[in-house]
Amino acid sequence: MQSVPVQRPDIREVALESGFVELDEDYDILLRDVCIRAAKSQISQTDTDDSRIIQAVEALDDIDKNVNELSERLFEWYGRYFPELEMTGEELARFISAYGSRANVPEEHVLSEKASTSMGAELSFIDEELLRALANNICSLYDTRRYIENYINTSMGSVAPNLCNITGASLGARLISMAGSLQKLAAFPSSTVQVIGANRALFKHLRSRAPSPKHGIIFNNPAIKNAPWWQRGKLARALASKISLAARTDFYSGELEPSIKEALEKKLEHIRNANPNPPKREPKPQPQGKGGKRTHRGKRKGGKR
Amino acid sequence: MQSVPVQRPDIREVALESGFVELDEDYDILLRDVCIRAAKSQISQTDTDDSRIIQAVEALDDIDKNVNELSERLFEWYGRYFPELEMTGEELARFISAYGSRANVPEEHVLSEKASTSMGAELSFIDEELLRALANNICSLYDTRRYIENYINTSMGSVAPNLCNITGASLGARLISMAGSLQKLAAFPSSTVQVIGANRALFKHLRSRAPSPKHGIIFNNPAIKNAPWWQRGKLARALASKISLAARTDFYSGELEPSIKEALEKKLEHIRNANPNPPKREPKPQPQGKGGKRTHRGKRKGGKR
Repeated sequence: MQSVPVQRPDIREVALESGFVELDEDYDILLRDVCIRAAKSQISQTDTDDSRIIQAVEALDDIDKNVNELSERLFEWYGRYFPELEMTGEELARFISAYGSRANVPEEHVLSEKASTSMGAELSFIDEELLRALANNICSLYDTRRYIENYINTSMGSVAPNLCNITGASLGARLISMAGSLQKLAAFPSSTVQVIGANRALFKHLRSRAPSPKHGIIFNNPAIKNAPWWQRGKLARALASKISLAARTDFYSGELEPSIKEALEKKLEHIRNANPNPPKREPKPQPQGKGGKRTHRGKRKGGKR
Repeated sequence: MQSVPVQRPDIREVALESGFVELDEDYDILLRDVCIRAAKSQISQTDTDDSRIIQAVEALDDIDKNVNELSERLFEWYGRYFPELEMTGEELARFISAYGSRANVPEEHVLSEKASTSMGAELSFIDEELLRALANNICSLYDTRRYIENYINTSMGSVAPNLCNITGASLGARLISMAGSLQKLAAFPSSTVQVIGANRALFKHLRSRAPSPKHGIIFNNPAIKNAPWWQRGKLARALASKISLAARTDFYSGELEPSIKEALEKKLEHIRNANPNPPKREPKPQPQGKGGKRTHRGKRKGGKR
């Protein structure tokens, strides 16, 4: 093999054009400097609006998960002292943060009778302080959660107005987060958008004879969630196609196009009117989760015999 | 079959003896009342000192887990704006809570040069507020964690002084928590105490030819942790026997017996002196975790062939 000489661009010219460095006598240091500065500049530019939304959505999920676990712990702990209290989550945390021990519930409070006749143990001062500290932590996590949610709602309106208009801020942000960026979401075919978030069911379908998933996280859109089961597949397909269109409009123009939403409403209405009654053959119950996996394995074994 | 008449105790007598109710003309209501009050009274009495410690230990574990997850999220999120910052966990949360954006790091701070030359993106005001809110949440969770830890240390000294003296408050509390109560821990044979917390390894040993575990959570005691591997099994056995003794003394007398600790120190010293050098045959590397499971399956298959 003969080595062909490669035409290299003059590094001095590149450096001058890049604008990252001044020209310098020392050639090697210059090259290294250009590369580092270029890389640094690219890194700072990765902080786009949609990537901030993605971070916020992921933080929201983390807070949800962790605040739930801490609330469960608080529920179990406080349940020893006031088992009759039928509160969970934020409501319970706010109650403990406000009153602490049962004895502090004022007489005019709706729960005062339950509190005075409770079969729970007496809460000592030091335990009360512990429980209150934990309850306060949980309350402020719920506050932060609400704060981040507002941030997502506000940002989505400016970053992806069409997507936000069609799916709502929360679902739109989640779609961007699962796709990886608004650009990627815009590049997806709408059939992919339809099943984003249904990875398990999709791969089961591709691997075996399981039915294809009809909807991924777009199921959370009320238009699909509240529809009868026989319309859901069709509605999801229509919704996914408009989500794709909206994401592309958002990414390439950024202008709000109310016509997309209007066309979607029309299409959904048409599907609802065209399929008023369930089809005659009941669909087979689709095995979900681990049970389904086992069935699938059984089938394969049967086929081999 | 003939039904034999059962001798029932006179419910009036039981009621009088129980002291929960006054005698009443209405027989049925009385019986129901006695039972309910007796049950309620038993429930309030379940709140013992050791059960409070167990709740605190479990809360501590929950907070640890959740605060770690939230810290990771904060690390990832803030890393976009200040990737050069080599902090994690509480340190990072306190830094963000104090300064927020890189721009706020004062000139005299040790990190001010890193902050001004960072390749991270610019942090907008609203993002800074979000990150600060999350960082504040994490800081107060760390505060609560410390608070609960102090509570456990204080309570252990009065509930189980001997256990605390031998294992330290944290490990002692964890032993009580895993056993279920101080009474249960006192009832365990010391061979069980030795392997509490090594459930996986113990059942693997009982099921197959895996080696028996030498220590469960008592491994966290520095006497075992810092010992060379060939002494650990012997040290763990000696420690477990004294833990059993201490738990029994705590449960039945509650008085601090310094002699237990002295006897333990003597015994440990004796073991260390009797085994100064490693045995000549190197122990086989013991497969741990999932890898081990696979090996075991492979062996069984081999045996069947």
